[in-house]
Amino acid sequence: MRVGIIGATGYGGAELLRLLHQHPHVEEVVLYTSSKEGMNIQDSYPHVSTIYHQTLQSIDHTSLKQEVDTVFLATPPGVSAEWSRKIAEAGCQVIDLSGDLRLEDPAVYEKWYKREAAPLDLIKEAVYGLPEWNRKEIETANIISNPGCYPTATLLGLAPLVKNKLIETDSIIVDAKSGTSGAGRSPSAITHFSEMNENFKIYQINQHKHIPEIEQNLQKWDKEIPNITFQPHLVPMVRGIMATIYAKANQELTEKALRDIYEQSYENERFVRIRPEGAYPATKEVYGSNYCDIGVTFDERTGRITVVSVIDNVVKGASGQAIQNYNIMNGFEESTGLTLVPMYP
Amino acid sequence: MRVGIIGATGYGGAELLRLLHQHPHVEEVVLYTSSKEGMNIQDSYPHVSTIYHQTLQSIDHTSLKQEVDTVFLATPPGVSAEWSRKIAEAGCQVIDLSGDLRLEDPAVYEKWYKREAAPLDLIKEAVYGLPEWNRKEIETANIISNPGCYPTATLLGLAPLVKNKLIETDSIIVDAKSGTSGAGRSPSAITHFSEMNENFKIYQINQHKHIPEIEQNLQKWDKEIPNITFQPHLVPMVRGIMATIYAKANQELTEKALRDIYEQSYENERFVRIRPEGAYPATKEVYGSNYCDIGVTFDERTGRITVVSVIDNVVKGASGQAIQNYNIMNGFEESTGLTLVPMYP
Amino acid sequence: MRVGIIGATGYGGAELLRLLHQHPHVEEVVLYTSSKEGMNIQDSYPHVSTIYHQTLQSIDHTSLKQEVDTVFLATPPGVSAEWSRKIAEAGCQVIDLSGDLRLEDPAVYEKWYKREAAPLDLIKEAVYGLPEWNRKEIETANIISNPGCYPTATLLGLAPLVKNKLIETDSIIVDAKSGTSGAGRSPSAITHFSEMNENFKIYQINQHKHIPEIEQNLQKWDKEIPNITFQPHLVPMVRGIMATIYAKANQELTEKALRDIYEQSYENERFVRIRPEGAYPATKEVYGSNYCDIGVTFDERTGRITVVSVIDNVVKGASGQAIQNYNIMNGFEESTGLTLVPMYP
Amino acid sequence: MRVGIIGATGYGGAELLRLLHQHPHVEEVVLYTSSKEGMNIQDSYPHVSTIYHQTLQSIDHTSLKQEVDTVFLATPPGVSAEWSRKIAEAGCQVIDLSGDLRLEDPAVYEKWYKREAAPLDLIKEAVYGLPEWNRKEIETANIISNPGCYPTATLLGLAPLVKNKLIETDSIIVDAKSGTSGAGRSPSAITHFSEMNENFKIYQINQHKHIPEIEQNLQKWDKEIPNITFQPHLVPMVRGIMATIYAKANQELTEKALRDIYEQSYENERFVRIRPEGAYPATKEVYGSNYCDIGVTFDERTGRITVVSVIDNVVKGASGQAIQNYNIMNGFEESTGLTLVPMYP
Repeated sequence: MRVGIIGATGYGGAELLRLLHQHPHVEEVVLYTSSKEGMNIQDSYPHVSTIYHQTLQSIDHTSLKQEVDTVFLATPPGVSAEWSRKIAEAGCQVIDLSGDLRLEDPAVYEKWYKREAAPLDLIKEAVYGLPEWNRKEIETANIISNPGCYPTATLLGLAPLVKNKLIETDSIIVDAKSGTSGAGRSPSAITHFSEMNENFKIYQINQHKHIPEIEQNLQKWDKEIPNITFQPHLVPMVRGIMATIYAKANQELTEKALRDIYEQSYENERFVRIRPEGAYPATKEVYGSNYCDIGVTFDERTGRITVVSVIDNVVKGASGQAIQNYNIMNGFEESTGLTLVPMYP
Repeated sequence: MRVGIIGATGYGGAELLRLLHQHPHVEEVVLYTSSKEGMNIQDSYPHVSTIYHQTLQSIDHTSLKQEVDTVFLATPPGVSAEWSRKIAEAGCQVIDLSGDLRLEDPAVYEKWYKREAAPLDLIKEAVYGLPEWNRKEIETANIISNPGCYPTATLLGLAPLVKNKLIETDSIIVDAKSGTSGAGRSPSAITHFSEMNENFKIYQINQHKHIPEIEQNLQKWDKEIPNITFQPHLVPMVRGIMATIYAKANQELTEKALRDIYEQSYENERFVRIRPEGAYPATKEVYGSNYCDIGVTFDERTGRITVVSVIDNVVKGASGQAIQNYNIMNGFEESTGLTLVPMYP
Repeated sequence: MRVGIIGATGYGGAELLRLLHQHPHVEEVVLYTSSKEGMNIQDSYPHVSTIYHQTLQSIDHTSLKQEVDTVFLATPPGVSAEWSRKIAEAGCQVIDLSGDLRLEDPAVYEKWYKREAAPLDLIKEAVYGLPEWNRKEIETANIISNPGCYPTATLLGLAPLVKNKLIETDSIIVDAKSGTSGAGRSPSAITHFSEMNENFKIYQINQHKHIPEIEQNLQKWDKEIPNITFQPHLVPMVRGIMATIYAKANQELTEKALRDIYEQSYENERFVRIRPEGAYPATKEVYGSNYCDIGVTFDERTGRITVVSVIDNVVKGASGQAIQNYNIMNGFEESTGLTLVPMYP
Repeated sequence: MRVGIIGATGYGGAELLRLLHQHPHVEEVVLYTSSKEGMNIQDSYPHVSTIYHQTLQSIDHTSLKQEVDTVFLATPPGVSAEWSRKIAEAGCQVIDLSGDLRLEDPAVYEKWYKREAAPLDLIKEAVYGLPEWNRKEIETANIISNPGCYPTATLLGLAPLVKNKLIETDSIIVDAKSGTSGAGRSPSAITHFSEMNENFKIYQINQHKHIPEIEQNLQKWDKEIPNITFQPHLVPMVRGIMATIYAKANQELTEKALRDIYEQSYENERFVRIRPEGAYPATKEVYGSNYCDIGVTFDERTGRITVVSVIDNVVKGASGQAIQNYNIMNGFEESTGLTLVPMYP
C-alpha cells in the first residue's frame, strides 16, 4: 500500500511519519504540499534524517490514484473541504484530521469555526472515525472525518455513562487539560516557552470548537443530552490530554457496579484500558501510544461520578487514531503499526 | 518586632524567610527546630547565603517570650496542636500554617486527617485567617489558623456567588490544579522529576483534606450548601494553583451583572484582582506574589458560571497570607512586606 | 527621582517594573514607546494590574528632562544609538540594556552584529556597567552600557583568574547555558514550547554576539588573552544562566588557595557569593535576585580549573544590574531596591 | 528466543520492556527479581497494562537455561559481579547494563566506585558493547558490558578525532548535560521536581564514575591521551544527553575536511547520523530512538574543534544499545527491534 500525507511539516504529519514507519503494509509514503514544493522533509524535521528522504511535491489529482491509495489530510481548518472532494473523486481513500467534516450541521460549523462550511453532501459522505463506537461504518467508509483530540478523550470517557443512561442528562461538566502540541507548530504568544513554562492557563472559555463535536456525538447516543459545559486548559508539557469528567448519577450506584460497566463496555477494545479500583491514569502512562486509559469513581457524599480519561493527543487524539481508521477501512488488523508501548518515563 | 519560625527548612519556611526580609517591622528572625539543632540555615538553603546566618535552635517555652513576639508554625500535620498551646501560653502570637486547627469539628478532622484532633478549646481559640472575609476576628486573634492553599483559591472564588445566593447550592464542582511545591520538600515517587515532568496527574480523588475545610467555610456563609465535589491535580510546574469552579446559576444573569458583583465584593481588597470581561488569569500572573486573580463568566448555553481563581500556593496559599494575618494582628498596614510585583516571565 | 523606560513591553522592561516598584527613591515611572502609543501596560502585562496604570506614550526629547531624570533603554539592537544620544543631550542619564554601545571598536560591532555601529564618540562616552570591576567609572558616568547576560556571568567568573594571572592565557573555554527568557518575548520556532520543552539545544555556535564583549573586557585585564571559545546552549527553563568555565592553571595550585583568591576578590561585593569547598551553585539559587553565585575547583588529575558561575539573566544579567548602575550613578546605596531574596523553590 | 530481565522496575528495565515488545525474535520475556517476588509488573508500571502480565519471580540458576537464552541485568552497581557469573555459568548470555564490568583495572574501579571490584577473570571475559567501534568482539561475546550513557555520547563524538590523531592529546574537555532519567527511579532531593524544575545544576564535579570509562577507551585508541576533563550537568528534562566536546586541532583544518572525516567514520553506521554543515543536533531529535546525532565545527579564530553529540540516554545510552548488542551476539540484523523513529515533538 502507498499512502500520501498533506501537511507533513506539521505535528500531525510528523506523527504520521513516525507511526507509518512501523506499519508493515505501508510500502511507500508520498508527501504532498501546496506551498513548500521542493523542500526535503529532513530540512523541516532533522529527526527523520536517514529515515525519510522525500521531497515535498505538489498534488496532481489526475495522477493521484497512480501514486497512492490513501491520503491523510493533516492540514489546518479550511482546506480539506476542497481537497477531500478531489482526492475522493480521484479514487483514493481520504482520512481528514482537520475538523472540517466533523459537524453535520453546516450552521453549527459556521457558528463555531467562523468560516464557511464544507458542502453538505461531502459532510454526509464522511464517517466519524471513532472506532470504538463507530467501527461498522468505518469499515465501508471512503472518507473519514478523524475525531478531535478533546472529543476522543471525552467521548470514550462518557460513552458508558450516556449509553447506559446512568446520569442526569444536564449534569455533564468536562474540565480538560492539554499539552501544547495540540496548538500546532506555528509559534504564538500563548505557546512561547517563556510564557508557557511554569504556567497553567485556561483558554477559549465556553468557545472551543470541540464543544459542538462532543455534543453532536453524545446526542446521537442519547438525544436527551443538552448542551454541556467544557473548559480547556493548557498544561506546561508537550503531549497528553486529561479530561476530568463530572456527572450526577441518576440512581444508586456502587463503585464496583460502575467499574463493571466500564469494563464490559470496553472488554473487546484493544486501545481502551480501565484502571482497577482506586487507580487513575496519568497522561504519561499513554505517552507516545494509541491508548485511552480511564479511571472512574463514584462519590457517595455527593452522588457524583468522576471519570478520568487520558490520551496522547498526537496519537489517539490524531495520527494514531487516523491509522487505526486506515486499518479498519482496509481490512487490516486494527492495531497494525500501533503496537507501541507507551514511553515511560 | 521579633519573629520565630518553626519548620524553616521546609518550603513554607523558606518563603517566610524570603518575605520577612522585605518586612520593615521585623528586625529579627529566630529559627526553631525540634530535630535539626545546630544546623545553619545556609546548609539547608544555599540561596539565603550571606542574607541569613542563623543556626537552628531548640525551642524553650520558658524563655520564648524574651526572644520573639510571634511564632510561625510551618510544620507538618500533627505537631502544632501541642506547640501552639505552649507558644500561646508563653505569651506569643501563633500563626499556624498547618491544617491542625482549621476544622472546628474534631470528628471531621479525625475522619479526613486520620489522626487525633487538637483539643477542642485550642481549636475554638484559633481564628481562621482568610483576611478578605474574616478580618475583624483576625484583628483581635492570638492564634491564627492559616488557610490551606486550595481553600484560599476556592473560597475567594466562590464567596461572591455563595454570599449573594446566586447559585444552586448543590451544583458546586471545583477542579483544582497545583504545582508540586504544595507537596512539600520531602522527595517522593509522585514528585520525582522523571515521573512528574511531561505528566499531568489527578490525586487523592474525593479524599483531599481540604474538602471539609472548604465546606465548613461555605456553610458558614450559606448553611444550605451541601457537600461539594473537589478534585485536585498536579501540574508539571513548581508554583501556582488554579481552581476552575463550576456552578449552576439559580436566576437569569448577565455577564456584566456577574462581574459587577465580583468587583464590588473585592473593591477594597488589595490582594484580589478581578479580570476585565473576556480575560482570565494564568497562574504565572501571580507568581511570587500575594495576589489572588479571578476571572468569571456566565454561559447562556448552559446556565453555568465558571470562575477561574489563581494564586501562588506558597504565597497567598501559605506564607504570604500568614504575613498578611501577622500584619492585621499587629495593626500594621495589611500589605506591609507584601508589595512584591509578580515575577514575569 | 523619576525614571523612564523605553521598551516596557519586553522582558527587560517587565523586570524593571518589578524591581523599580521596590525602589524607595523612585517616585514615578514613565513608559515611552515608539510604536505602541496609547496602550495601557496592563493590556500587555496583566500581572501588573492594579500596580501600574501607565499608558505608553511617545517620547519628546524637548520636554524629556521635565518628565524624568534617567531613562532605561530596554530595546532591541539597533535603536539605542540614535536614542541614547538624544536622551543624553536632553540632560537625562541613559542606561542602555542593548548591546549597541558595548563594543569599543565599531568594526568589531559590525562584524558580529551585522549592522552599522553607533558613532564612535557616543561609544566612547558610554561606560561599561559591570560594577564589581568598573565602579569608579560608573560613579561619574552619564551613559551606561549595561553588560550582556553571558558576559556578566562569564566575566565575574573569570576575573580572579585573569587578574591574578593564574591560567594559561589561551586555555579559556566557556560552556554557557541559558533559560529562554534571554531570547526575548517575540515568539519564534526555536522557543516554541513544543520544540523547547524536553529539549536541550546548542545555538549560534562560534558566532554569539557576546563573544567579542567578553574578549574585549578580558583583554583589558590582561592583554595577553587571545580569542576564547564560547558556546551557548538553551535550557528548557525560563530564567537562569550557568557559565561553566574551563582553564588550565599555569602554576601549582591548591583548592584552598584558589578559593581564597575568589573570596578575597569579592569580599566587599554584596552581589557576588562564593560557595564553600565542595559546593557549587545551581541557577535556582539566584532566581529572581541580583546575585552572581560562584563555585570553583582545581583538578589535580588534569591541572584544570573549573569555575561555575550562575546568575538570573533577567536580573543580574539585565535589569537588576541596570538598577545597580543607576544606584551608583546617583549616589544611592548600591543595593537599594535590590535586596530581594532569591525565590526558592 | 526468550530473554530475562533483572531489574525490570527501574527505568532501564522499563525501556527494555518497551523495546523488546517491538522485537520480532523475542517471543518471551521473563522478569526476575531478588526482592519483589510476586509483584505484577503492572503494579509498578501501569503504562504496560494489558501488554505485559508478568509477575516478578526469583531467579534459580539451576533452571535458568530452561527458561531464557539471554539475561539483561538492569541493576544498580554492585550486584552484577555475582549474578553475571552465575548466569554465564548457567549457559545464558549476559548483557550487563550496570558499570560493574566496564573498567579493566580493579583498582580504578575501586577508586571511582568506592566499592569492591568484580573478579578480574569476569571483567576480562566481558566485552565492552560499543558496537560502532567494537563490533567484531561483540559478535562472539558471551558477556557484554554495556557502555554508560555519557561514555556512549562522548566516545562516539570523539572517536574520529582521536583515531585520526587530529587533536592535541591533552586538550579534551567534555561538558555533558543529561536529563534526570539517568539518575534512576529512586526519589532523591536532587531530582525532586520542586528542586529540579526551572533549575540547572552541575554535579559530581571531577568525580563522575564515567570519567575512567571514557579515558580507558580513548587510551585504547591512542595511548597518548592523558586524563580528560569531564563535567556533568542536570537539565530539567527527563530524557536526553548532549555532550559538548572541545579539543584543539593539532593541524590546519577546514570545516569541510573535518565533516568528511566524520561522515567517512560512520558511513556504514545505521545509528550514527552526522548533521550537514552549519547544523547541530538537539536532544529531542533522537528522543525515544537509538540514534546518536553528531554535529561538528572548526573555529579558525581559536583553532578549536567543537563536537556536539546527542543521544537518548535511556535508549542508545542504555537499553537500546543493549538490544543492539543482543542482536549482534545472536546474528540478527543489528537494528532489529530498534527501527523506531524519534518521537517529535
